[in-house]
Amino acid sequence: MTLSNRITRLFGIRYPVIQGGMVWCSGWKLASAVSNAGGLGLIGAGSMRPQVLREHIQQCKSATSNPFGVNIPLLYPEVEEIVQICILEKVPVVFTSAGSPARFTTLLKSAGITVVHVVANIKFALKAEASGVDALVAEGFEAGGHNGFEETTTMTLIPLIRQASKLPLIAAGGIATGSQLLAALALGAEGVQIGSRFAVSNESSAHPYFKARVIAASEGDTSLSMKKLVPVRLLKNAFAEKVKEAEARGADAEELKDLLGKGRAKKGMFEGDLVEGELEIGQAAALIQRIESVEEIFHDLLSGFEMAKKSLDSNISSDY
Amino acid sequence: MTLSNRITRLFGIRYPVIQGGMVWCSGWKLASAVSNAGGLGLIGAGSMRPQVLREHIQQCKSATSNPFGVNIPLLYPEVEEIVQICILEKVPVVFTSAGSPARFTTLLKSAGITVVHVVANIKFALKAEASGVDALVAEGFEAGGHNGFEETTTMTLIPLIRQASKLPLIAAGGIATGSQLLAALALGAEGVQIGSRFAVSNESSAHPYFKARVIAASEGDTSLSMKKLVPVRLLKNAFAEKVKEAEARGADAEELKDLLGKGRAKKGMFEGDLVEGELEIGQAAALIQRIESVEEIFHDLLSGFEMAKKSLDSNISSDY
Repeated sequence: MTLSNRITRLFGIRYPVIQGGMVWCSGWKLASAVSNAGGLGLIGAGSMRPQVLREHIQQCKSATSNPFGVNIPLLYPEVEEIVQICILEKVPVVFTSAGSPARFTTLLKSAGITVVHVVANIKFALKAEASGVDALVAEGFEAGGHNGFEETTTMTLIPLIRQASKLPLIAAGGIATGSQLLAALALGAEGVQIGSRFAVSNESSAHPYFKARVIAASEGDTSLSMKKLVPVRLLKNAFAEKVKEAEARGADAEELKDLLGKGRAKKGMFEGDLVEGELEIGQAAALIQRIESVEEIFHDLLSGFEMAKKSLDSNISSDY
Repeated sequence: MTLSNRITRLFGIRYPVIQGGMVWCSGWKLASAVSNAGGLGLIGAGSMRPQVLREHIQQCKSATSNPFGVNIPLLYPEVEEIVQICILEKVPVVFTSAGSPARFTTLLKSAGITVVHVVANIKFALKAEASGVDALVAEGFEAGGHNGFEETTTMTLIPLIRQASKLPLIAAGGIATGSQLLAALALGAEGVQIGSRFAVSNESSAHPYFKARVIAASEGDTSLSMKKLVPVRLLKNAFAEKVKEAEARGADAEELKDLLGKGRAKKGMFEGDLVEGELEIGQAAALIQRIESVEEIFHDLLSGFEMAKKSLDSNISSDY
């Protein structure tokens, strides 16, 4: 089977599979491996100082001749510098998230960069479309890390965004397998963004303890926390329990902010502190069984997709 | 296109579409209309005294010669009597939910009834399978009404349950359209249970004010409330706001129970009190545009399914 649609053509990639740009997981090693495997790899700028990002972009260019991209969370303090580096380094694709799509889209597009914005609701999808982005990622409640306030799930969100906008659409949130790639296309998306599964690949820069904890996770082991601050999906651990207790007795945003402090995501995901760290991961963690190479993940995704397609077609007989 | 699989064969129905048994919405009128349209209609016993249920079953039998069923929430106080009535009236199918599947499955099966249990996690799926049920409904976080504690969404839950059990599987939660039926089959389900869309059909016994409010709902207009008691997805209104405020300041289960009181679902959904009533509905409310007949809903579901299938196939070219 060959997959070909607006998303594969927009990025010039073989499979409509995007590796989500993730803090502390997706440096040049992961991004270039995904691009080499035929997907679109994204460097996650959210956990990099500008000069570190520049090095990762340069390394990525030497490691792959295929298109790759950078994910920029727009609330990042050094975002201006990050954007300039992407332009100077001629990064082919930028995904923006967590902020106004109007801010940099025109600038990035005028530099010849393909721009995609990540949304969790219709309102921002329309804002992004108006700002001139080339495509949208619609990310559901089940996704890891930072998340929307509406809590709309992937199953409901994709048809809603599909109705609201004609832009090429990438589904995200809860997706880790080939049957889910098929389901996303059935819902009207033209590609998927996968985070959690790549976060625990061999090529991810996350700490081995974090990867092992994600592999061990089962259903119900993540929850959406800190809704009074910025909602974030975390693996349950001592820190997440502390947050849950605080929330249960009515803690306000200020108290949650103090509790969170600084550097917890790095501590958990990069340094492997499974007790006090912030362990960002999606509900898909329950579906991930082993630590694999990016190549193995692509092989499994594609064979899973083919099996699911055959199984789907076995339900249907055509009358015409 | 014709759909045929283990679910259509198990129930002897034309389309693998089950109308969820819902309090205050699904009496004999709705259930028989769905069964006449080629799906499986379910009478919702949760809001009926035993004698009322008996009348609804008898009316349903006169209104359709097709298979139909009864949904029994197992925590219902008069559940023993309800089960006896289903057996005496030779109801062909019973869906059980909200309780232990071990309690009545053997009894119901020995009376020749096809038994399906509704689950929101793997643990209960395995319990239900061990108790001898014929099929499972796996219901995600986005579903209306009572819901699981794990908050696993339909996109993640269906592949998890598909891996855990070989039983025929029905997907529920967030599903209201033909493309979502296709996506559910792609995920490995063999049918869908649709609640919200049928709750606002012409044949639903819900109050017209409630139906109109659901039609007007957009994304983010429902939320999962009362997690310290039993999680339930409600439309936002004055009552839901009161609950939210209480929860935000750390109200315990006792206070929530007092706040809920008795009879609020009836008040909201059956009597049309949109301010103080409990308005149970799923995230799919945002996808529902109008009040239609069951026949119109089936027509739209099936044409939407065919369109989505063609669109899906247009992404894929076969190499073999």
